[in-house]
Amino acid sequence: MFQPDFAKGGGLLPAIAQDAATGEVLMLAYVNEEAWRETLRSGFATYYSRSRGKLWKKGESSGNLQRIVEVLVDCDGDTILYKVEQLGQVACHTGRISCFYRRVNPDGSIVETQNVLIDPAQIYQGKKHE
Amino acid sequence: MFQPDFAKGGGLLPAIAQDAATGEVLMLAYVNEEAWRETLRSGFATYYSRSRGKLWKKGESSGNLQRIVEVLVDCDGDTILYKVEQLGQVACHTGRISCFYRRVNPDGSIVETQNVLIDPAQIYQGKKHE
Repeated sequence: MFQPDFAKGGGLLPAIAQDAATGEVLMLAYVNEEAWRETLRSGFATYYSRSRGKLWKKGESSGNLQRIVEVLVDCDGDTILYKVEQLGQVACHTGRISCFYRRVNPDGSIVETQNVLIDPAQIYQGKKHE
Repeated sequence: MFQPDFAKGGGLLPAIAQDAATGEVLMLAYVNEEAWRETLRSGFATYYSRSRGKLWKKGESSGNLQRIVEVLVDCDGDTILYKVEQLGQVACHTGRISCFYRRVNPDGSIVETQNVLIDPAQIYQGKKHE
């Protein structure tokens, strides 16, 4: 049974979530061994929240779950790629499809490349940002 | 001038390289402030090699440079996404297009999803793995 190299990342490895249909990179978060096992078991992307110090089933409060289509690992076994079906249209807590909505120009200036599709207040309905 | 939150990552932040044309996620490596500045300045993806402890212009030994099409940052400013044109066809040192060539099934078994396109010995011609 394959196991990513969690020791290499001090117990946490980066996991990229990519929309399986569009190819858009949605977000990056971190995964510990428990989150890894839970993702494979449940079929929903599960991370470890560094800020809250606990397991984080993405979308458990917002409803915007990520259904696993495919789990991939890289050549070194220290990065994970979740290809997902993003439920609820948006992955980002700002109400955008992807967290990567800011382009940085060579001069360091920023351009926003995506619109807010859903009011964040509506996503979380008074709950804390997941 | 925008600056990613390098302090948050202890000086290093993860950077995803994605093929700008196909949407395929090619690899993930790490970027420090110097690599970030050099990427914006040069227009080629530059990382910090954790194993060698120095700046790493991807492809400087193999020729498989990554020409920057777009640089994006996430909502928290702690993850970078390079959309690139991958020169020399393959990003992975194993000779595959992407480093994410292993699918992990729910039972933990592994399936390889990509063929080796270029003999790694040919890519590096006796040079050490970059």
